[in-house]
Amino acid sequence: MTNAHPWFTQAVAELADPQNQRVWSIIVSLFGDMAQERGAKISGGALGRIIEPMGIKPEAIRVALHRLRKDGWIESDRVGRVSMHFLTEYGRTQSARVTPRIYARDPAPDTPLHLLIAEDGTGTRLLEDILLSHDYTPIGRNTALGPGAPPVDQDELLILEVTTRSVPRWVHEKLFPPDLRAACRSLHEAVRHVSQGRPASWEPTPCQIATLRTLIVHRWRRVVLRLPDLPDRFCPPDWTGPACRAQVFRLLDQLPRPLPEDLNQD
Amino acid sequence: MTNAHPWFTQAVAELADPQNQRVWSIIVSLFGDMAQERGAKISGGALGRIIEPMGIKPEAIRVALHRLRKDGWIESDRVGRVSMHFLTEYGRTQSARVTPRIYARDPAPDTPLHLLIAEDGTGTRLLEDILLSHDYTPIGRNTALGPGAPPVDQDELLILEVTTRSVPRWVHEKLFPPDLRAACRSLHEAVRHVSQGRPASWEPTPCQIATLRTLIVHRWRRVVLRLPDLPDRFCPPDWTGPACRAQVFRLLDQLPRPLPEDLNQD
Repeated sequence: MTNAHPWFTQAVAELADPQNQRVWSIIVSLFGDMAQERGAKISGGALGRIIEPMGIKPEAIRVALHRLRKDGWIESDRVGRVSMHFLTEYGRTQSARVTPRIYARDPAPDTPLHLLIAEDGTGTRLLEDILLSHDYTPIGRNTALGPGAPPVDQDELLILEVTTRSVPRWVHEKLFPPDLRAACRSLHEAVRHVSQGRPASWEPTPCQIATLRTLIVHRWRRVVLRLPDLPDRFCPPDWTGPACRAQVFRLLDQLPRPLPEDLNQD
Repeated sequence: MTNAHPWFTQAVAELADPQNQRVWSIIVSLFGDMAQERGAKISGGALGRIIEPMGIKPEAIRVALHRLRKDGWIESDRVGRVSMHFLTEYGRTQSARVTPRIYARDPAPDTPLHLLIAEDGTGTRLLEDILLSHDYTPIGRNTALGPGAPPVDQDELLILEVTTRSVPRWVHEKLFPPDLRAACRSLHEAVRHVSQGRPASWEPTPCQIATLRTLIVHRWRRVVLRLPDLPDRFCPPDWTGPACRAQVFRLLDQLPRPLPEDLNQD
């Protein structure tokens, strides 16, 4: 690591999430990206080679792995002196659930939308329950927009299929709050800058690729999973999401996903 | 009047609105039905012959006319010893505004609907202003449904074109409260009973026809103008509106509208 290319060191600094360097969350991003398949295992040594260049101490990695085991995300085997870590079935399910959204190269096509309206007062609780378990975007205390076919088993909600005519500023602000816009803008700039500066002479190890991929996926995940599942016209005019998405996948394509066995032998 | 046919006396009693016998409002219904055209005038004598059989005293008619003049609805001329009353331009405009809804024989065909959603909190006031001046039906504190094309000059509302999928009980109850359902049901029964009992031998005067028409129109007006301008599926299952409407117009057709000059010479 001490011999890392200066561009790599610089890229790691630029891609690190200024808001969230929680180690357990970074490990989740790492496994989701490079060891999501059943049977895929990452050695303790590889984890260190991938994560320590982010400025994270071995002790912090151990603590995070402990927590992830306790929460049922990760299991660990020991083969001789080598620890091998892998996602549990629960961890794989959780990971698989968000993978399509994280890795979608194009935003979802405009599907039909429907709106749920709950009764003022008593209906608020009912709507909250639905929001917890489905892909709805709350618009107000008693209204929520969702994609696709409306539910058929709900007889306490007014259900309307809708076509959007006009989206006011307060809806943009509500769905894309300032911190989300800032996170997207700064990621876009970081990824673009890192892409542009990459020297032709750089010959990365699989773990260096993994470090950069993990940082990119981790940070993009924290943007894309907050986006409402709604058509473009719900985005504010200054929304940089599509440009950021394009840039993220351009850089990931330049850093082809290494195989677990290459990481473990690095 | 003392010689009125017993069926007529009975019909007047059955058609009288149990909730509202405000004389000024009855006079408004009368002019709207039989003297809405510019130049149409009703004599004081005719007003008495039409309204007094409802059990309303001449003094109450004078007080009501005074109020309607003061409010700018009615003007009065005196030709010799005869007072002639007629709608002002303002009165005609007010009357003409609701005439299409009162006299529509078929409920409005299902037009496209749109929904306005205001921001929680601050948007409530904005929506209230719009409700005052347009044909919107409030669904909740921050949502209102309206027929036809959505407004184009509103940039503070989320505007959605909608197709109704499912209407819950609380929406039925909100749009068709118990007193409205009861008023519609009792009018339906009264009109049906009056229609069925009409003897072939009854030969009405124009003013007797006018008495019955006024009672019917007055009471129907107080039902139909409260109905939301929404498709059938927003009506509760026990809603008697369409049957009542049909019965009202069947009876009105049997009591052809007299001309003002026939009323005045009666």
